[in-house]
Amino acid sequence: MTSDAPVRVALLGCGTVGSEVVRLLEDQAGDLAARVGAPVELAGVAVRRPHRHPGLDPDLVTTDASALVSREDVDVVVEVVGGIEPARTLLLQAIKSGKSVVTANKALLAEDGATLAEAADAAGVDLYYEASVAGAIPLLRPLRESLAGDRITRVAGIVNGTTNFILSAMSASGAGYAEALEEATRLGYAEADPSADVDGYDAASKAAILATIAFHTRITAADVHCEGIRRVTAADIAAARGLGCTIKLLAICERVPGSGGAPESVSARVYPAMIPLSHPLASVNEAFNAVFVEADAAGQLMFYGQGAGGAPTASAVLGDLVAVARNRVGGGRGPRESAYASLPVLPIGDVHTRYHVSLEVADRTGVLSAVAGEFARRGVSIAAVRQTGGREDGDVPEAEAEAARLVVVTHGAPDSALHATVEALAGLDVVRGVESVLRVEGLGRPVSTLGVAG
Amino acid sequence: MTSDAPVRVALLGCGTVGSEVVRLLEDQAGDLAARVGAPVELAGVAVRRPHRHPGLDPDLVTTDASALVSREDVDVVVEVVGGIEPARTLLLQAIKSGKSVVTANKALLAEDGATLAEAADAAGVDLYYEASVAGAIPLLRPLRESLAGDRITRVAGIVNGTTNFILSAMSASGAGYAEALEEATRLGYAEADPSADVDGYDAASKAAILATIAFHTRITAADVHCEGIRRVTAADIAAARGLGCTIKLLAICERVPGSGGAPESVSARVYPAMIPLSHPLASVNEAFNAVFVEADAAGQLMFYGQGAGGAPTASAVLGDLVAVARNRVGGGRGPRESAYASLPVLPIGDVHTRYHVSLEVADRTGVLSAVAGEFARRGVSIAAVRQTGGREDGDVPEAEAEAARLVVVTHGAPDSALHATVEALAGLDVVRGVESVLRVEGLGRPVSTLGVAG
Repeated sequence: MTSDAPVRVALLGCGTVGSEVVRLLEDQAGDLAARVGAPVELAGVAVRRPHRHPGLDPDLVTTDASALVSREDVDVVVEVVGGIEPARTLLLQAIKSGKSVVTANKALLAEDGATLAEAADAAGVDLYYEASVAGAIPLLRPLRESLAGDRITRVAGIVNGTTNFILSAMSASGAGYAEALEEATRLGYAEADPSADVDGYDAASKAAILATIAFHTRITAADVHCEGIRRVTAADIAAARGLGCTIKLLAICERVPGSGGAPESVSARVYPAMIPLSHPLASVNEAFNAVFVEADAAGQLMFYGQGAGGAPTASAVLGDLVAVARNRVGGGRGPRESAYASLPVLPIGDVHTRYHVSLEVADRTGVLSAVAGEFARRGVSIAAVRQTGGREDGDVPEAEAEAARLVVVTHGAPDSALHATVEALAGLDVVRGVESVLRVEGLGRPVSTLGVAG
Repeated sequence: MTSDAPVRVALLGCGTVGSEVVRLLEDQAGDLAARVGAPVELAGVAVRRPHRHPGLDPDLVTTDASALVSREDVDVVVEVVGGIEPARTLLLQAIKSGKSVVTANKALLAEDGATLAEAADAAGVDLYYEASVAGAIPLLRPLRESLAGDRITRVAGIVNGTTNFILSAMSASGAGYAEALEEATRLGYAEADPSADVDGYDAASKAAILATIAFHTRITAADVHCEGIRRVTAADIAAARGLGCTIKLLAICERVPGSGGAPESVSARVYPAMIPLSHPLASVNEAFNAVFVEADAAGQLMFYGQGAGGAPTASAVLGDLVAVARNRVGGGRGPRESAYASLPVLPIGDVHTRYHVSLEVADRTGVLSAVAGEFARRGVSIAAVRQTGGREDGDVPEAEAEAARLVVVTHGAPDSALHATVEALAGLDVVRGVESVLRVEGLGRPVSTLGVAG
């Protein structure tokens, strides 16, 4: 179907991503018209400070976003402002005025996506947000559409470029967290206030969006257990290397089978974890993103690409814009939110994880027994132990009680039991310090070859 | 939108893929209904030999595929028979009867996709075929929809599992082609008549489908330059290893910029090529598939997963089926074929490639000069040369003219010039034999570090 009447687009925000959207709309005008079946035109651009955008046609620029999103001549609203407000109010206003919406706003979708989805359903308009997760990587469309006939069991990967840059730098140079953060800030990979990235909130928002789609269950950012990378130390990185692993900030969304009367549930969590160097995610460096998807029939799939940046994010926005514009021209709507499964969210304490614990211990008889006892008491099975330093390195009399290091890697156990074990270990007489505690993720591959003696 | 009226599906073929489609339709019935907004029911299954399918409901089984695809109570036809006929006639009949079509038939799409697409447009029905390329990996939908606002410049990767299994086995064990093929046949990775796979036709069909979508230009299998792996020898594998490379059968679809009056064009080709071991495609082993996509704004993306097999292919079929069924329930149509760009196809002779040539040469003064002269005469620039064997290994008098080996890696040059150079080299007095000729692909990454002295 083709039409002479253009599809008219209101753009909210014209920063790194927005300015690339404007550029692509101009550069690709001919191709977009051919693909949509009608010209795609910019109807207006809402910005806060018009003087900062001298390249924009002044006739298009406005500071009144609210008036723009309701204008009669606007068909689609593209939002790349970010943040909860005023984005939510503006998008709800747009939807109620019958506009379809394309947004890259992960924070808003993860906090209140349901309100937007319900409003879009009520108004019969489209709501697309591929750009909200993993930048240019096509991920939401494959999850929602390509795998619509399959049963997704797991979505896990690296979805935050800033933290991946920092952890890659720490691994490559042995730098500490503060130093690596400073470099990331200097190079523009981290923002002046890096909290959303380094505390894991950005990844948690993305996990919420991915889990919602993958499991047909509404998951909000508040449902996602979230730990950032601020406490990852150079010692952790060294400990990981000693185990043939590296540390990545992972977003993990899992379907957890029901058992013993407990219903099937969903776990969504973000934390730094050790993964084997042999795992494909281990070689995803700098600001790249990569996500593994597992489904019953499809098996394991991987998606890799640039997870952020103006042009890659704008590519995802434009893909959505073409879909929405096609629907405007040809009739029909994209798939809407599907939350029929309504699975419960498993608290982190009940999730089975594996821990790596590195302890500074007194070098005397009975230490291993005391430490192992704390694990056993809570039903945690130990996969491997390695002891270094202390007597094994020389001929020190027992009475001197030199320090040694004990590295323990557990089998899977409830996270609460692992957490309690570590707290108890810290209180043991023979434990002088807990040097490093990190979860270990095999990500579906065997981690039995962790390089530590059993 | 929801409906009580079921979406009724006719299935053509019930082999490896078809039987998995039947299983998923049963196992996932509840989820499919929730995702589509209406129950999805099997209306009939056309097979050639009903007695071979004792597990199917006899009321559903028919040998009259032609009657089935036109039946009033059928909404969607799923074709997993393969081959040109009778599939084409049946699908055209289905389309003309107003049924939407989901097919995994790469051969038919690559030979005559335009006829199907035009018929679907005329009838206003959907034509989906995600399963025709790279099995479970979502690839066509991302290319056609997620990147619809971007400019795709290259799609390249491993899209045939059988040949990848054979080449992986040759690399791992040093086995020759015949031995590796035998193992692949024994393990069920190769068919009794392996021609479609080992001669590259299967990969060429997929390249035609990918190029058509990526470049909005109709490309048929006949437009794809195609070389298989029958002539890859253990010596080639060893030569690749010597250069820090491995050999993969690649499907490469490229946009070639216009220059010097020549218009922008498209190259689609399939051949075994050396790629650096450091490239992610080098570690894609056995029957897995992986495809790199490059686009102006999105940058480089990678998709990885199972490229064949009953369940993975059925996953892709079901994803399409859900999309088509949703459109039936809610109105609207998926994106249709888009061939507006109509770019010319660049003949292989004009495509810039790089060659690796390994020659057995007489070990006497002037050999390198004679060989290098043949390259220079055709304007081919040499990137690296390595000489082994002969005098350098000992102290042989010049008159004895022992044999030596000369390995040459070129810079990029028109394939016709490279081809002509190799022919000329074979005719040189000083060349005793051409041991190995392979193209070298850097796949967008620098291949300057090929491990040979410059």
